[in-house]
Amino acid sequence: MAHGFQPNWTEKPPKKNSFRSVFKWGDPKEFKHPSHAWYEMLKQTFDLTDADFKKPRFEGNEKVTIDHGISLSADDIEAITGIAGKKNVSTDDYSRVKYSHGKTVDEAMDLRHQRVRHVPDMVVHPKNKNDVQKIVSYCNTQKIPIYVFSGGSSVTFGLKTPKAGIMLVMSTHMNQLIGVNELNQTATVQPGMFGPAYEAALNDAPDTFNTAHCYTCGHFPQSFEFSTVGGWVVTLGSGQASTYYGDAGDIVFAQEYVTPAGSFKTLEFPATATGPKLNDIMKGNEGAFGILVEVTMKIFRYMPKNRQRFGFMFPSWEAAVNASREISQGEFGLPAVFRISDPEETEVGLKLYGIHGTPIDKLITFRGYKPMERCLCMGWAEGEKAFAGHVKDMVAKICKHNGAMSLSGYAARKWEKTRYREPYMREDLMDYGIIIDTLESGVTWDNLHRLHQGVRKHIKSRPGTICMTHASHFYPQGTNLYFIFMLKMTDLADYRKFHDGILAAILANGGSISHHHGVGKLFSKFMDQHLGKTQMEALRALKNHFDPNHIMNPGGHLGLDADE
Amino acid sequence: MAHGFQPNWTEKPPKKNSFRSVFKWGDPKEFKHPSHAWYEMLKQTFDLTDADFKKPRFEGNEKVTIDHGISLSADDIEAITGIAGKKNVSTDDYSRVKYSHGKTVDEAMDLRHQRVRHVPDMVVHPKNKNDVQKIVSYCNTQKIPIYVFSGGSSVTFGLKTPKAGIMLVMSTHMNQLIGVNELNQTATVQPGMFGPAYEAALNDAPDTFNTAHCYTCGHFPQSFEFSTVGGWVVTLGSGQASTYYGDAGDIVFAQEYVTPAGSFKTLEFPATATGPKLNDIMKGNEGAFGILVEVTMKIFRYMPKNRQRFGFMFPSWEAAVNASREISQGEFGLPAVFRISDPEETEVGLKLYGIHGTPIDKLITFRGYKPMERCLCMGWAEGEKAFAGHVKDMVAKICKHNGAMSLSGYAARKWEKTRYREPYMREDLMDYGIIIDTLESGVTWDNLHRLHQGVRKHIKSRPGTICMTHASHFYPQGTNLYFIFMLKMTDLADYRKFHDGILAAILANGGSISHHHGVGKLFSKFMDQHLGKTQMEALRALKNHFDPNHIMNPGGHLGLDADE
Repeated sequence: MAHGFQPNWTEKPPKKNSFRSVFKWGDPKEFKHPSHAWYEMLKQTFDLTDADFKKPRFEGNEKVTIDHGISLSADDIEAITGIAGKKNVSTDDYSRVKYSHGKTVDEAMDLRHQRVRHVPDMVVHPKNKNDVQKIVSYCNTQKIPIYVFSGGSSVTFGLKTPKAGIMLVMSTHMNQLIGVNELNQTATVQPGMFGPAYEAALNDAPDTFNTAHCYTCGHFPQSFEFSTVGGWVVTLGSGQASTYYGDAGDIVFAQEYVTPAGSFKTLEFPATATGPKLNDIMKGNEGAFGILVEVTMKIFRYMPKNRQRFGFMFPSWEAAVNASREISQGEFGLPAVFRISDPEETEVGLKLYGIHGTPIDKLITFRGYKPMERCLCMGWAEGEKAFAGHVKDMVAKICKHNGAMSLSGYAARKWEKTRYREPYMREDLMDYGIIIDTLESGVTWDNLHRLHQGVRKHIKSRPGTICMTHASHFYPQGTNLYFIFMLKMTDLADYRKFHDGILAAILANGGSISHHHGVGKLFSKFMDQHLGKTQMEALRALKNHFDPNHIMNPGGHLGLDADE
Repeated sequence: MAHGFQPNWTEKPPKKNSFRSVFKWGDPKEFKHPSHAWYEMLKQTFDLTDADFKKPRFEGNEKVTIDHGISLSADDIEAITGIAGKKNVSTDDYSRVKYSHGKTVDEAMDLRHQRVRHVPDMVVHPKNKNDVQKIVSYCNTQKIPIYVFSGGSSVTFGLKTPKAGIMLVMSTHMNQLIGVNELNQTATVQPGMFGPAYEAALNDAPDTFNTAHCYTCGHFPQSFEFSTVGGWVVTLGSGQASTYYGDAGDIVFAQEYVTPAGSFKTLEFPATATGPKLNDIMKGNEGAFGILVEVTMKIFRYMPKNRQRFGFMFPSWEAAVNASREISQGEFGLPAVFRISDPEETEVGLKLYGIHGTPIDKLITFRGYKPMERCLCMGWAEGEKAFAGHVKDMVAKICKHNGAMSLSGYAARKWEKTRYREPYMREDLMDYGIIIDTLESGVTWDNLHRLHQGVRKHIKSRPGTICMTHASHFYPQGTNLYFIFMLKMTDLADYRKFHDGILAAILANGGSISHHHGVGKLFSKFMDQHLGKTQMEALRALKNHFDPNHIMNPGGHLGLDADE
């Protein structure tokens, strides 16, 4: 090893209108490179040398061009342009590609090779819900497919446009916080508002909305900076503080959709007993029933000073899981952030955060917490001051009772600062033919170990594959398992086969096909097997009711029109 | 007033097979009579004298006989008898009346006059879910209406059988706790299990199911003793400890239904992002989509020793509401039971609990908490010991900050002991022509005062009508208002007009048509106006999917087939 050798990680923003500018995560000017310890791990795991990291390949720096025709008639284009306004529509190659691709690994693999499988005929940026209503009405009459793009962070082919038609981009204009109702602790927001703008507006509510208190949205997915409130709701996302604040679906108070069957609006009540809840029928429909045009979210007091961080090292995964369950069922309130990493993720994490090989690492090992057995745990409690303090005390008590060693709040502080930056590493790795991808699954406590072992067994059966697992969303009845896997692979068909195998292993071992990534068009083929035919028929009945002509996100979304 | 005069309250159990035995609340041998202070209040309010309380009228002591024919064919009766077994079916007059009436005031008014409007042709007590499956399948083929009876405590015409057909009684055989999963903290239970049996089995889980801890169901509606787990779920009930444990819908983990469209079973996951949640689509369907045959409920640690009771007197309703909102939004955990009574309920309550006119009452008044302004608050915190203590401390701090005087846990203890007994008073009052009835509504904080005032105004516009209001289910975004009204009235048509007027006032003032009583066939005519046509059409689409022949609870249930 040439000491001091630095791989040629890209530090340049993607070229304008390039394929890379479509698939690159996040801010074009932001990068996060693997740590030195990670770099060494990559070389060792994938049997690579420094020489392999000199020249990035298939970067997608080419300018986007496509040869897909436009099937919309000139009349249709004129009609839709008339509704949205000329400056809010486009049919150029770049727009058609940019607004029909998310962050699914397959999409990056395709775009690196300038492969574009599907694009919409036309991209439209509606100004308001009236535009959306008119467009949906027109398209329903003319049977023109409609797709929806908001933050663009989907990792499940949520933005794929197999039937062409038009793509509505919600984040261009419909991205405002309409109002804060302090008495009700709710905020009414347009679906295309990005996480940071929404959170900042709530933090600043005393200035902007003349409230007595500062507020927080309570929802912080890893995609926070590049996802929107509407996306959170329609895909049933979970944020990193979901253990306390609830998942996105829990935070929804009322919704307004435009559907081919009409405008669908739910009432603002804290609870009702007026039949199956209309709010719940719509949450998670991923644009297959209609388009979310306004949503009222629950908000929470913003009290960052009360945050109580903690970190622990457990002697084993079993001990970490047992402690997590005791905490989740302890009835003393729940921590906001709570994460446990399995032994492999713990080791890789120590490398990622530069702790591997340091005196701290040696101390931990000396105290009997052995590599590839020990498990890292970290998080924090929020809420009213004494409440948060008590939650932290109880967490500490239960962790220690389960054999854990306290690490202070260091790891949590470190993670907190970099928690949104990890996805940036994907581009560096793929530049050298290494895939990093994730899958997650909801699971009950009694099935956690079976699922963890079953999925790991499948992934690790492929030589030279890294598989890290953590649990990060806790409920009294169970948690999620988040699998991060890394492998050297460049062929998309091979990858799809490998990936489908993991999904099959998740289902075979009793996990849910998605905990918080949604379904999109990536998991849809597993839906009938997963939920069962009678259950899927109920969702299809709703689909057929709201969208009898199947113009909303058609071509397999949620598995509702897979046969077509 | 003849001092020492005792009204002739009935102390005799209803005669066997009498109309009274159908409509009387609860245990036939249990009674609760109005207190002396209440009796005086009744005489004064309704302009009555002791002489009016000497002879009860229209007691419904007559033996049940009806002249309703049976429209089911002999073949149908034979087929259904073949499925359920001869001893599990009946077509006698008494069974047909008993199992098609709940506790709606209208039903009591009718039965006191031996008026029977609708009965099923046949009553069937299924042994298990296979029986239910076969019966639904047969009835769907033959287009025979099916109704469902479980606890029988509906106050919304939930058990009315306008289209005859068969009535399935779930509580006769399908009333067992199938299992407790301690790792997941869930219990799988048959729908016809009554509250006390379910709670006792969970409390005794260490003996019965060999668990490490005792558990509680967390759901304690006023009807607890005579309602069933299945009824809680399908009507979206709320228990008296819902502020901490959640409403019935929140406590459901997985469900199994038999529907004409097939067996519908949801998976056990703490969270998923696989489209609109199937569990939520079914909760609250009130038997209009299918029949709940098994349900897995979340359960909670049973730690009664940690209960921390409190009681306060507020100077005004505004102060009580403000404190309640601060507590609900305080982020220090929530009390399990929390109740605030408006000024009129506070006065009537002091009379009910024998506090009116005592030295305590005088002390409270002396300290400036004036009758018809002051508001009673009581409740308790549960959960882990220090958590419960902290919730109580925070509640006390906020109440005092809002001008409240502490009353200790006395009122809560008193209420706790008698909380399930109050419905028994209904028979005493109706024996003398006095109706006591209730309506409840969900409401956001910003609309609470408008709703309270609007509904009170309507009720009090009728001279000589008592209207008590409390809020007892708290959420960060709002609460419920529970209206209890008493009036002297014996004509059913008059009463229906009065009652519909209150519902209209609730809707006109932005309340929900039901917070936790469900919809049944009593509120159904208001559903389109309340939820809106587009929204109701979505529920009708589900109805038509699950029950294309409209055999499930037909004749207006939930407003889904009102036109027929």
